[in-house]
Amino acid sequence: MLRDCNSDFLDHLAESLPEGRLCAPAPRYLEEPRGRWHGRAGAVALPRNVEEVAAILRAAHEARVAVVPFGGGTGLVGGQVASDGPVPLLLSLEKMAAIREVHPSENVLIAEAGCILADVQGAAEEVGRLFPLSLASEGSAQIGGLLATNAGGVNVLRYGNARDLVLGLEVVLADGRVWHGLKRLRKDNTGYELRHLMLGSEGTLGVITAASLRLAPRPAKQGAALMVVESPAAALDLLARAQARFGEGISAFELIGGMGLHFLAETMPQVRLPFEAPPDWMVLIDLGLPEGSAPDGALEALFEEGFEAGLVSDGVIAASLAQRAEFWTLRESIPEANRHIGAISSHDISLPLSEIPAFIVQAGPELARINRYRINCFGHLGDGNLHYNVFPVLGRNRADHEDERAAIKTCVHDLVYAMGGSVSAEHGIGRFKTADMQRYGDPVKLAAMRAIKHALDPRGILNPGAVLPEEPSAKGEM
Amino acid sequence: MLRDCNSDFLDHLAESLPEGRLCAPAPRYLEEPRGRWHGRAGAVALPRNVEEVAAILRAAHEARVAVVPFGGGTGLVGGQVASDGPVPLLLSLEKMAAIREVHPSENVLIAEAGCILADVQGAAEEVGRLFPLSLASEGSAQIGGLLATNAGGVNVLRYGNARDLVLGLEVVLADGRVWHGLKRLRKDNTGYELRHLMLGSEGTLGVITAASLRLAPRPAKQGAALMVVESPAAALDLLARAQARFGEGISAFELIGGMGLHFLAETMPQVRLPFEAPPDWMVLIDLGLPEGSAPDGALEALFEEGFEAGLVSDGVIAASLAQRAEFWTLRESIPEANRHIGAISSHDISLPLSEIPAFIVQAGPELARINRYRINCFGHLGDGNLHYNVFPVLGRNRADHEDERAAIKTCVHDLVYAMGGSVSAEHGIGRFKTADMQRYGDPVKLAAMRAIKHALDPRGILNPGAVLPEEPSAKGEM
Repeated sequence: MLRDCNSDFLDHLAESLPEGRLCAPAPRYLEEPRGRWHGRAGAVALPRNVEEVAAILRAAHEARVAVVPFGGGTGLVGGQVASDGPVPLLLSLEKMAAIREVHPSENVLIAEAGCILADVQGAAEEVGRLFPLSLASEGSAQIGGLLATNAGGVNVLRYGNARDLVLGLEVVLADGRVWHGLKRLRKDNTGYELRHLMLGSEGTLGVITAASLRLAPRPAKQGAALMVVESPAAALDLLARAQARFGEGISAFELIGGMGLHFLAETMPQVRLPFEAPPDWMVLIDLGLPEGSAPDGALEALFEEGFEAGLVSDGVIAASLAQRAEFWTLRESIPEANRHIGAISSHDISLPLSEIPAFIVQAGPELARINRYRINCFGHLGDGNLHYNVFPVLGRNRADHEDERAAIKTCVHDLVYAMGGSVSAEHGIGRFKTADMQRYGDPVKLAAMRAIKHALDPRGILNPGAVLPEEPSAKGEM
Repeated sequence: MLRDCNSDFLDHLAESLPEGRLCAPAPRYLEEPRGRWHGRAGAVALPRNVEEVAAILRAAHEARVAVVPFGGGTGLVGGQVASDGPVPLLLSLEKMAAIREVHPSENVLIAEAGCILADVQGAAEEVGRLFPLSLASEGSAQIGGLLATNAGGVNVLRYGNARDLVLGLEVVLADGRVWHGLKRLRKDNTGYELRHLMLGSEGTLGVITAASLRLAPRPAKQGAALMVVESPAAALDLLARAQARFGEGISAFELIGGMGLHFLAETMPQVRLPFEAPPDWMVLIDLGLPEGSAPDGALEALFEEGFEAGLVSDGVIAASLAQRAEFWTLRESIPEANRHIGAISSHDISLPLSEIPAFIVQAGPELARINRYRINCFGHLGDGNLHYNVFPVLGRNRADHEDERAAIKTCVHDLVYAMGGSVSAEHGIGRFKTADMQRYGDPVKLAAMRAIKHALDPRGILNPGAVLPEEPSAKGEM
């Protein structure tokens, strides 16, 4: 049974910390980007080193007070906001923002949890390397949260998810013990892979305080193109042909639906659109190739092959890095345009690549049975990851459809599940999707997750309510 | 407390299985490649599908009988041989050797645990794809064992370890429940990463019965070169320059010490050596580049850069795929030559890349304090993974040094540990290295491992004695 984070506990905790490590929660700590949920907290703890994090968790463990780890606050599934249950202590890592070590010759960098992603990217660039994790919120998202949620983004096709960029971790467990696992090794088969268990556990198994991150060489030659494709199936065919030509040289392969371009024209006219008439479907292809290759020629050759095969009908190759950046601005502006329009329901789904065309064909008519909507389907096609967002038709707004949200979600998620997909591709489970875990999760996996949670956090103080659906039994053992 | 796998248990088990699933253990099931340990087993179970595996584990769990999962039997750390403790049931997956599905357009293949690695490589090649896992024992090693031990091999630099090639798993837990996790998704953030916990757990947390494997596009252009380098430091400098030029285009970057070439000349004269006088150090560089590139020219340019920088003094670029294969035969023959000579002590170590030269400089003199030896140092330099093997000087043999083995091991491992390295880079812990886990492992990680083991296998029937050092307490909770 958990207790509230009250003044008694805070007084006790303050004794084991230096001055000024505890403060009242400013509003920004209690909000989440989509404004649906509002969190509560008895206080915000701002530790400056791993020993202070350990002291905080030791005290919370002893007092059975819930702790909600907080990073940049950019999570989209409510993992950072506890809106019910006992009042928690909010643990923000923002003051642990040092880059501890940089090893260019090893392509390794060690960053603390509070580092902003953009700063880590910058530190890598300073030594001529690339930290490939890249997503819309990189200006405020923090490494700790990005790793705890195994963030995805636009370079997963080439470099993998966040977990694939981590060589080692420093983690404080629920009872305050510290696992010193900041290795700089590419290969280490000494025991269970605790690292991957912590990555993606959304702060429910331990608190990541620092990570040993793998950097990549900066691609010698870069290039990008926008190509108008006949359909999502044509886009997949084009991807396969691109992979046959360039292999891992493809840094990103993004699908952009026509609706997103209409939304941009409607709400962000300052964003330049590449084609006079917005096409139904286009792809953004980003290449990073070795010394001695010519990305533009390579993209031209791909376009010709696609054109002859009837897959692409038009296209533009970036004439400069500035134009390449413009292509990416277009892509990255779509989520903002979506916010201006106001989605009724947003879905972060993944599917086996070959199922994607069938999903897009079937989902529209299924939803039309509920009501008339505008659908903006876009995302990381190369990863099989679509952002499938449902909007009101012109003249109506999301409020008119509030009572349809549950039905829309079930409709989309049931179809995804039936096709072997995932209802949370890159955003995680947080608190918004625990019911989906119960509905769609493998029951044996769920039982194993509960057993692991119980083994590593027997008192359940770490981010309670996140990831795991409510337990049928209180015990949590298998 | 575990019980022996006796006739009572086997009679009971036989009732829940079809005819002919149980047999007496042939010698090959009780041996390990280095012939140091000899295993025992009450019987060998040969299930043909996941339901039969589940029935076997259910029965073993109820009867508290130990189960040792068995793949190709090629493991080098004794994970497959139980030489003491209660007599176990040996569970061989060899009859589950189907390739269930191939999805070329998704770069995915689903294989059962008993598939031989070479057969999976072949199935990928048939559809114009590459399954990148490649190592010396690929002709007999099985997928289940390769994944349970997170095998490494020669392509880790480009494609990652075995775990990085797995999208989903089908696993039978200790009590016979089946986790159906054979997903074909690149992104799936729904709950804890059970997949990575099972991968590398060496059969102590569950039995992998099938895996969804990621394939890669076959590189459009391939090339390879052998280059004579001045030193390991020069080899690392050359690697950094190669990465700046070719990025992930480098498939392998192998270090070969002069001693290995002497051993080849001494024991395998049929293997052609590329240089008249065996150099002290050389590297094998393997490139896989996109369409439109010229690997030979690229390697020439790299050689010239390295030559001008005083890093390389001689080199040969493969004039054909046949010559490239010859280079690899040379590399792959070194372990066999080592066996002919007879190592006193073999070490599978990894280090932070920048520490490798210092390690090689220091390890020799440290060992010389024990006795005079010949050292063959070679391996996957790009991964920071060295095979550091110690041999008698000419005229003596390993038997003369038997009593020095422990001191040699401690000397090498202490130095590795002091430099932030791992004493098991790709071979795992098995039974031979549990004492090293105790000596060098992080105590908090060890406690967490025990808690997880206890949570998922409360009766401890899965591969007892492997991976985890003997427990101080019987309980295994944190």
